[in-house]
Amino acid sequence: MFDEMHEECGVFGIYCPDGSLDPAHQTYLALYALQHRGQESCGIAVNDKGVIISQKDLGLIPEVFNEVVLNHLSGGNMAIGHVRYSTTGSNNRDNAQPLVMKYIKGTIALAHNGNLVNAYELRSHLQLSGAIFQTTNDSEVIAYIIAKCRLKAPSIERAVVEAMNTLKGAYSIVLMSPKKLIAARDPNGFRPLCMGKIGENIVFASETCALDAIGATFVRDIEPGEVVVVSDGKVESIKEHCGGKSSLCIFEYIYFARPDSIIDGESVHMARRRAGALLAKRHPVEADLTVGVPDSGIDAALGYAEESGIPYGLGFIKNRYVGRTFIQPTQGQRVNSVKIKLNALSSAVKGKRVVMVDDSIVRGTTSARIVSLLREAGAKEVHVRISSPPFKNPCFFGTDIDSRDKLIACRMSVDEICRTIGADSLGYLDAEDLEKLAPNAKCSFCTGCFTGRYPMEVPDEIPKNRFETKFDV
Amino acid sequence: MFDEMHEECGVFGIYCPDGSLDPAHQTYLALYALQHRGQESCGIAVNDKGVIISQKDLGLIPEVFNEVVLNHLSGGNMAIGHVRYSTTGSNNRDNAQPLVMKYIKGTIALAHNGNLVNAYELRSHLQLSGAIFQTTNDSEVIAYIIAKCRLKAPSIERAVVEAMNTLKGAYSIVLMSPKKLIAARDPNGFRPLCMGKIGENIVFASETCALDAIGATFVRDIEPGEVVVVSDGKVESIKEHCGGKSSLCIFEYIYFARPDSIIDGESVHMARRRAGALLAKRHPVEADLTVGVPDSGIDAALGYAEESGIPYGLGFIKNRYVGRTFIQPTQGQRVNSVKIKLNALSSAVKGKRVVMVDDSIVRGTTSARIVSLLREAGAKEVHVRISSPPFKNPCFFGTDIDSRDKLIACRMSVDEICRTIGADSLGYLDAEDLEKLAPNAKCSFCTGCFTGRYPMEVPDEIPKNRFETKFDV
Amino acid sequence: MFDEMHEECGVFGIYCPDGSLDPAHQTYLALYALQHRGQESCGIAVNDKGVIISQKDLGLIPEVFNEVVLNHLSGGNMAIGHVRYSTTGSNNRDNAQPLVMKYIKGTIALAHNGNLVNAYELRSHLQLSGAIFQTTNDSEVIAYIIAKCRLKAPSIERAVVEAMNTLKGAYSIVLMSPKKLIAARDPNGFRPLCMGKIGENIVFASETCALDAIGATFVRDIEPGEVVVVSDGKVESIKEHCGGKSSLCIFEYIYFARPDSIIDGESVHMARRRAGALLAKRHPVEADLTVGVPDSGIDAALGYAEESGIPYGLGFIKNRYVGRTFIQPTQGQRVNSVKIKLNALSSAVKGKRVVMVDDSIVRGTTSARIVSLLREAGAKEVHVRISSPPFKNPCFFGTDIDSRDKLIACRMSVDEICRTIGADSLGYLDAEDLEKLAPNAKCSFCTGCFTGRYPMEVPDEIPKNRFETKFDV
Amino acid sequence: MFDEMHEECGVFGIYCPDGSLDPAHQTYLALYALQHRGQESCGIAVNDKGVIISQKDLGLIPEVFNEVVLNHLSGGNMAIGHVRYSTTGSNNRDNAQPLVMKYIKGTIALAHNGNLVNAYELRSHLQLSGAIFQTTNDSEVIAYIIAKCRLKAPSIERAVVEAMNTLKGAYSIVLMSPKKLIAARDPNGFRPLCMGKIGENIVFASETCALDAIGATFVRDIEPGEVVVVSDGKVESIKEHCGGKSSLCIFEYIYFARPDSIIDGESVHMARRRAGALLAKRHPVEADLTVGVPDSGIDAALGYAEESGIPYGLGFIKNRYVGRTFIQPTQGQRVNSVKIKLNALSSAVKGKRVVMVDDSIVRGTTSARIVSLLREAGAKEVHVRISSPPFKNPCFFGTDIDSRDKLIACRMSVDEICRTIGADSLGYLDAEDLEKLAPNAKCSFCTGCFTGRYPMEVPDEIPKNRFETKFDV
Repeated sequence: MFDEMHEECGVFGIYCPDGSLDPAHQTYLALYALQHRGQESCGIAVNDKGVIISQKDLGLIPEVFNEVVLNHLSGGNMAIGHVRYSTTGSNNRDNAQPLVMKYIKGTIALAHNGNLVNAYELRSHLQLSGAIFQTTNDSEVIAYIIAKCRLKAPSIERAVVEAMNTLKGAYSIVLMSPKKLIAARDPNGFRPLCMGKIGENIVFASETCALDAIGATFVRDIEPGEVVVVSDGKVESIKEHCGGKSSLCIFEYIYFARPDSIIDGESVHMARRRAGALLAKRHPVEADLTVGVPDSGIDAALGYAEESGIPYGLGFIKNRYVGRTFIQPTQGQRVNSVKIKLNALSSAVKGKRVVMVDDSIVRGTTSARIVSLLREAGAKEVHVRISSPPFKNPCFFGTDIDSRDKLIACRMSVDEICRTIGADSLGYLDAEDLEKLAPNAKCSFCTGCFTGRYPMEVPDEIPKNRFETKFDV
Repeated sequence: MFDEMHEECGVFGIYCPDGSLDPAHQTYLALYALQHRGQESCGIAVNDKGVIISQKDLGLIPEVFNEVVLNHLSGGNMAIGHVRYSTTGSNNRDNAQPLVMKYIKGTIALAHNGNLVNAYELRSHLQLSGAIFQTTNDSEVIAYIIAKCRLKAPSIERAVVEAMNTLKGAYSIVLMSPKKLIAARDPNGFRPLCMGKIGENIVFASETCALDAIGATFVRDIEPGEVVVVSDGKVESIKEHCGGKSSLCIFEYIYFARPDSIIDGESVHMARRRAGALLAKRHPVEADLTVGVPDSGIDAALGYAEESGIPYGLGFIKNRYVGRTFIQPTQGQRVNSVKIKLNALSSAVKGKRVVMVDDSIVRGTTSARIVSLLREAGAKEVHVRISSPPFKNPCFFGTDIDSRDKLIACRMSVDEICRTIGADSLGYLDAEDLEKLAPNAKCSFCTGCFTGRYPMEVPDEIPKNRFETKFDV
Repeated sequence: MFDEMHEECGVFGIYCPDGSLDPAHQTYLALYALQHRGQESCGIAVNDKGVIISQKDLGLIPEVFNEVVLNHLSGGNMAIGHVRYSTTGSNNRDNAQPLVMKYIKGTIALAHNGNLVNAYELRSHLQLSGAIFQTTNDSEVIAYIIAKCRLKAPSIERAVVEAMNTLKGAYSIVLMSPKKLIAARDPNGFRPLCMGKIGENIVFASETCALDAIGATFVRDIEPGEVVVVSDGKVESIKEHCGGKSSLCIFEYIYFARPDSIIDGESVHMARRRAGALLAKRHPVEADLTVGVPDSGIDAALGYAEESGIPYGLGFIKNRYVGRTFIQPTQGQRVNSVKIKLNALSSAVKGKRVVMVDDSIVRGTTSARIVSLLREAGAKEVHVRISSPPFKNPCFFGTDIDSRDKLIACRMSVDEICRTIGADSLGYLDAEDLEKLAPNAKCSFCTGCFTGRYPMEVPDEIPKNRFETKFDV
Repeated sequence: MFDEMHEECGVFGIYCPDGSLDPAHQTYLALYALQHRGQESCGIAVNDKGVIISQKDLGLIPEVFNEVVLNHLSGGNMAIGHVRYSTTGSNNRDNAQPLVMKYIKGTIALAHNGNLVNAYELRSHLQLSGAIFQTTNDSEVIAYIIAKCRLKAPSIERAVVEAMNTLKGAYSIVLMSPKKLIAARDPNGFRPLCMGKIGENIVFASETCALDAIGATFVRDIEPGEVVVVSDGKVESIKEHCGGKSSLCIFEYIYFARPDSIIDGESVHMARRRAGALLAKRHPVEADLTVGVPDSGIDAALGYAEESGIPYGLGFIKNRYVGRTFIQPTQGQRVNSVKIKLNALSSAVKGKRVVMVDDSIVRGTTSARIVSLLREAGAKEVHVRISSPPFKNPCFFGTDIDSRDKLIACRMSVDEICRTIGADSLGYLDAEDLEKLAPNAKCSFCTGCFTGRYPMEVPDEIPKNRFETKFDV
């Protein structure tokens, strides 16, 4: 909850041929529903008969988009949007997306979720031919590759299909050329991407909750490897890259996605409840109360309670008004940030043996604080259950689990972690159970961060800011 | 949740004789925990050896207080803070509190929660002696009365005690004179007010959750009618106005207060669970799933589930990023604001008979939309249970239930309301059950808005902006 | 220019019976023209059939008023506005005007320029009857006195006339009752106030330049002691307090007012040119070039050049983009603020004997820096001529020359000042010549700050923050 | 003054090897002095041992840079800065400079003043090899060309020198590689660029007024065609492109530059006075008063007055508080924007025959309004003298005089213009006199916008947004 994993992006696109809806405004609403996928920056680009204007900045949707900005973006017949979490610290507004670029065939805008594993090679190769880069985004690499392919390809969609021969890794892309809206998902399908319909208008979104928010109907998921092109009111699908073994990121179900989304056929909420139930089977305990750590531990806690028969209850109140940061005092003691955001419900937990369900343990410090909140509130015992296996490996496909040294599970045994966080017992989801989380899913999974088994070749280690080089004379 | 009742204020005060804590910063953190009591404006006043400086403005805590402002307020040995909801529309920054005033004995600052029933008379009377008013707050009336009393009283605390002879209605006050911090609660104890301790420092707060947030220990509730004075490290209590029949607002338990607060001896969370259980007894139904409308229906839903045996589950996902307002499109259809903020969890409710628990129905439109969300998500039946009796009467003591014509329960029978909101059945908490909500409370209750039985004489009807007069020549 | 004197206010009022103009917008434009009279805060209050709404804040006009705010204030048939400079440091937004108050007869708004000499006594007296004060403005005292008088007076204008028996000192007031717009000027006429017409609409303003800005025609000055009432399209004058010896602040001509304003019959620009010419007669010198320190020394420099025959030229370029403050470096040397805002024109002054004309010397530090700029730019000699006599006495009537200890002329002889600022010679305007500055003025002058002869009894010394008391228990 | 010409940029760079100054802060101060060269956007990039961070945004210096931002940029040993005016309307924050780019050899930052004549060809050519562009700046083209040249060049400075073989047109560049600060000026020297020294630190700036502002000493102008490299405390000059015929933009003297700057050996102020004197010789008139239109007509008015013997005086007061835009009323008549910003000084001009000197006439509407201000203020005659020849041709080298259809002088004779603006007579500077403006300048001039004779081949016509293409499918 506080030193959590971060998804790097959410994308959205809408094609409104008949002007019945304002593309920018629909995108604005949809991005609210995708905000959980990225809170650092956001942006919208609108296509009005080939002229693309955009607004993007650091901040949440309501910070970046006010009435004046939305009016400025009003009109046109297509828009794409993006929310982004990035790992590179303070002030990199330049990295906000959508990326708008002019190339030989006009202007295109691109929004991207995922990480390439060969971005560094591609980038170096491009630089050796004289390319310059103004961001540290993989998206800029993708744009370059597409632009290169476009030189020979007969159309923008063919350029995208060609580019996919070169791009390795995770990418769910929404792209807008002067006349077309295109969605593409990498052949592994690491990141979700779906298509919906609202009247005659076509939309693409990272998650179905964005469709719900604007009243669109779910049509289908974009297949791993598929390219979908919308133009002149027609929707075409190119499946040349389809058919390989897919590997949706399993952590989308466990943590990243919103519980009300349905990804590749499986409900996120149900997957989490199943995780809780599987935990209860593997790690039963005698206790009086099951509580979830808000917000992402709630669903699994319900599953644990159902399976174990230990009643579910509220264990915490989360303060909805404290933002990502609050101001620490300049004098006197530092303030416990967990305490400001979370309070244990002593009237519910006092004197009880409590099962506390959370989605993951990253560094352990936050878990320790939350356990301690329960004890201070009078809990007699605290049994921690984690609805995912221990993180032991970096992620190369678009989350920031990229360094082994900060992961507590790389340094300690489960027993040691249990003592470190001050729990009476600790149980993780068994890696073997991962396969059982999403029985309805039409795809296979990437479980690399838990198992070290990646669905494609990966680099040795990813440095945080791989493009922040500083050599030369 | 969307056309909800509003509490008009939260107050906080801290006395730090030894400089171990920064008063402004502690107040800032505490106000975060009280933000649910008022989201329109907020303010902090700091007392540095008799010089009082303050910052107050329209907006939430993080909007009004940034690092620069908090540094500016840093220092001193006392501070008071206030969060406010008001009913008077757009731009009345002048009404933000604390009120800082200079009078014959120096400067005092005052923060107030509640409503006087005789404010209009007092104000008219003062104006007849030449007084001018710069706000439409009752607090300005209270300040005047205290200032008048101070002319004859030997000390500020005696002036407060004298003023209480004149002030009728609801007031929980925190007040700062050059050297003293004073807390006072009206003889009925309509609004909560408690005292805590953090090291040698004394704090007062509307709710105990504010004590938890800053790591303070709960000492005791301020008694109805009590005046507590802190100065020179001593805490004194004046109880001349104590001993009458108290009448804490019952809606503090049902809706206003935070579930993790304990008011006058009773846990808010437990009171709500009891409300749910009482509902289940009075209005049983055959169903498959009990869900609560976030956030205030959750606790009662758990109580309903426990009592009825119908399993509790998640029914909705609330979007945490959509603020109080979002921008409506300038073209195309209006957006359903409930849909943007709330999504039904179809994987949980599809095909189910659902009991939906909420805290109240005001106008009915929001309830209708939420019922409809469940049906669109596939719920087979929707049985609405409300953890309070129908609102039929205005409140004169500090909430904005002040006009009968908007209250659906004044115009319709329960059956009609049930049809209007599209539910399969509808059950309200029985007014007789109100007494059973808080068996541990050391006080009696005001249930006027439900029963029409007020604990003191009240005016005929309160106009919204009673001080916005416009006569004269 | 940098450690300058400050006028404390500018006022404006407009009465638009027929809705042909938007009162708030006209006030906004007029305040731009009066901004030189006050840059700390500003405000506009609009009267729409008795309902008064207002916006006021710290900052310049374009910082406080944007399109949204002006639209919010749009409508109504009267408005008043205010710009303010204050002497009390950082964050006193509460002191911004117009003051809007509710009293026995409804709501009135008041904007005030000047200082009372008996504010402290009046305030103490009011506090002894229980009054509370929320600002440290004299305006709040004036409002109270008028409210008191209104209890017995048959109309608001009679209350104003009665109040003038009690108020001592400088006040040019514009006041708005539910139905009337009233302008009043103290019997001495310390501060300017004039009336204009634009179509059928009546306006009042501190200076005629505000009339020019909105295209209004000058009608006449308000007489010292006069009260003008506009209502129902009629303009009435009450002259009960007229007829005494007037004493317009002579420094309005020398520094405060805009050169394009005409005050009480005399052009400010011409008065300054005359000051330059009088200086040239009293303090001739052999030199090659006359330059003025921008902006307020320019007019007098032209007068000096005309009279002396020493050619006028540009000596400095002022940076128009550097605001009141710029950010000092956190490391390395402090930056010379004069240098950032002003550059000497070396191509014009190199090798020349220069006469440098400025309006005043306050502490001397700024003058020293400007002299040094000229020398660094190559000036052979620098002869400083000041178009006012030395400041030797505090002002009690609305400027901040209120403390003798900072005034260089109280501590040093002219010769010493000349050496301190590094000039080759220094000449001040002779106090006897003050009478010759404005031969066309229909009034007499207050020259107290130069001569110590005040037109009324004054207190011994004014403390800066006279109302910031901090006693009591 | 209101529909004026716009310079497109100002640049600055500083190299502080010993940390005695904060590079970002010095740049901040210097940009204030260059703000007149661009008010749309600005930016600073700082180099801290090869890591380049930057801040750039739409707005003036004080709008973009506050204390927090400057602290963030604090440190390092080099910085470059940029102010920009652009012609492309509202929201193009992406075009703000410095441009920071990563290329094969690390990160470089670049700030550029001027316009390439072959930007379109270069851009098309680059796009044909797959390049993408994220701005519509020439600077991005320059960066690409340098990056391409760097592939073969042994050093960044050699890459710049090579790039200059390809770049055609106007460019004064300041560029920062990880270890070097480089300044380059195109072989024609269209735009100014100079070098200064402050202690051991080297600075480059568009104008000398920026050196004065930070207390730096002028060293010399960068020669047309010169590349200056600063690294390891050494300053090296590469003059391979020097020696051709130079062509400094003559309009730098007439309008763009600040009067206190000295460009290529000639004082801007003196050049303007000479323009005024030359006007007086060519277009004498019988009159009583010479006035300049603030601010850019003042110097030439002094020259006219000196030569003609007609006394110089103040004719206008400019409102220093009205920014680039003010809010027009939503109801009622439109406001005359000239009137809000400028007031004629009736006490000076009434009854006089006035010579009004201004720097140029673009569309004529503003001139007409200013003439009318003088007449309304009582001027008997108004003789307009323009200190430049009529604009008849577009500029291809960095100003926005790029379209003939808006230029009044392309459509009308001088007599017609005279009647259009309502003057009694009108005289322009003779194009032949242009050569006499700057006798001390070490360079020749481009007078293309007046004479149509350009110093190099130019395209037929430049479309406003030449890179805003919108073809493709």
